Amino acid sequence: MSREFEFIADLRKNLLLHHKPNSRLVIPPGDDTAELKVPETVLYAADMLMDQVHFKIDEIDPKLAGRKALAVNISDIAAMAGTPSDAVVSLAIPKQRKHKDLGELVMAGVIDLAREFNVTIAGGDTNSWDGPLVISVAILGHPHTKKSVQRSGAKPGDWIFVTGHLGGSILGKHLSFTPRVAEATYLHTHYSLHSMMDLSDGLSGDIRHILSESEVGAKLTKESIPISPNLHNLPPPQKLQHALSDGEDFELLFTLSPEMGKKLVADQPFAPELMVTKIGEITETESLVWEDGSEIHLTGFRHSF
Amino acid sequence: MSREFEFIADLRKNLLLHHKPNSRLVIPPGDDTAELKVPETVLYAADMLMDQVHFKIDEIDPKLAGRKALAVNISDIAAMAGTPSDAVVSLAIPKQRKHKDLGELVMAGVIDLAREFNVTIAGGDTNSWDGPLVISVAILGHPHTKKSVQRSGAKPGDWIFVTGHLGGSILGKHLSFTPRVAEATYLHTHYSLHSMMDLSDGLSGDIRHILSESEVGAKLTKESIPISPNLHNLPPPQKLQHALSDGEDFELLFTLSPEMGKKLVADQPFAPELMVTKIGEITETESLVWEDGSEIHLTGFRHSF
Repeated sequence: MSREFEFIADLRKNLLLHHKPNSRLVIPPGDDTAELKVPETVLYAADMLMDQVHFKIDEIDPKLAGRKALAVNISDIAAMAGTPSDAVVSLAIPKQRKHKDLGELVMAGVIDLAREFNVTIAGGDTNSWDGPLVISVAILGHPHTKKSVQRSGAKPGDWIFVTGHLGGSILGKHLSFTPRVAEATYLHTHYSLHSMMDLSDGLSGDIRHILSESEVGAKLTKESIPISPNLHNLPPPQKLQHALSDGEDFELLFTLSPEMGKKLVADQPFAPELMVTKIGEITETESLVWEDGSEIHLTGFRHSF
Repeated sequence: MSREFEFIADLRKNLLLHHKPNSRLVIPPGDDTAELKVPETVLYAADMLMDQVHFKIDEIDPKLAGRKALAVNISDIAAMAGTPSDAVVSLAIPKQRKHKDLGELVMAGVIDLAREFNVTIAGGDTNSWDGPLVISVAILGHPHTKKSVQRSGAKPGDWIFVTGHLGGSILGKHLSFTPRVAEATYLHTHYSLHSMMDLSDGLSGDIRHILSESEVGAKLTKESIPISPNLHNLPPPQKLQHALSDGEDFELLFTLSPEMGKKLVADQPFAPELMVTKIGEITETESLVWEDGSEIHLTGFRHSF
């Protein structure tokens, strides 16, 4: 570790002030590494966000950039039906910056969300440089007691669902979304999911990962795609286009048996804004089509701006 | 996870080609997260390197930048007397770049060192952008069976040692150093270390962390500081200055009981280039002084360039 002394001092203070005494944290931030008690297996992922790619730091509250950096990592854990536990956070802070205390603001955003999701910030690194702001997070999580839900588990006949609404995330949700940890855990506990991922690049692109990993295809119902109310001003074909390809929805895409699917449709276990919607079914033919058999194209919208 | 599909494909290929089938890797790279079997407690750290701060990418083999990014993380695990096990690697790759395959070259450097230290690359993230190259690594490690060596364990009377030679790392060692994993494990197993850290910012600055965490002081012997042969062209006072403050030596600084210290001096268990040198003793008075009582100043050299 190097040059992160103030950063570490802040983390320690925060641990003392805001976290309950954490019996899992054997060695807290401030040494060369932290030491943690963990279950027999852990989930492990990393995601890095950069200014002008994932946010525009001069146009937003810097806390939201920090929040988003942790949120996308928590969302990866949710996508396995796991529970996030411990993150490390590395920052590259521009010497030229609008906010003098940019690093502290970013970390405040990280720490607020960490507290909300009971995630320990176990350490990290901070440097200043002549480049733009970079926020890099790695995260550990505890797997679901049942077994993690992978992308590769979809079976022909499975019903395909998404949580919430899709599209238009750039209008704000990409910064303020709530990772679907509780929902993923609940769904796997009660409906034994076959496959799952979180939607980061847009439904029409992301679903291909489940299909290729599972060696199956899918038939989707155009009318069923839950289009975000944020897109209400657009004409219908454009609405659909955006819902399929905007990306950064960070909703869950998952498949399960038709029996469990029927039960889930009947139950609708979540609040209305978080409704689960059946959008199609898994097929044996390895293609991605609408119900009328027409191919679903990968459209050109990207969430990077 | 997002936009790291080729990267993940490369990691998978690499796992298949070069790693022994890894029974600890329950879910390999390619899903939203990896899943790993781990011991009851793990070490956990992160360090991020940036172009023009930690290396100059247009002047070096890009593999060396990747190698260094993993090496500094492995060195953090070594500093606890632990064994590195699993890393995640996030890259921000400049759109404007000398090497078209910059990302692949950086990852090749990471993977070569990972193989050497039996570290699994469990996942990561890659993005391109208009900024300079950033390489962010997080690492897990297994603690020593005895108990991790913290910075806070130094006791008055302890002998203070360093491995290897100090100073002049900028001439090359900062890119090519070998993290002292085997040495740290051996030392703790045979000599029961009281405190340890790796030297990243220079001895005269770094030792203060052991002193403040342990609430002790130290008296160092000027003549005993093992000055790097790379500095042989400099006049003696400058040599010492560089050895104390250049940084990025990534050698071990540790303390142990005088009894164990005597044994260690007699044993000299490592190869000559890795000799351990007694450089002073821990004192009850919380100050950092030379044997003649004069204060050791924090000097202005920084390893950032």
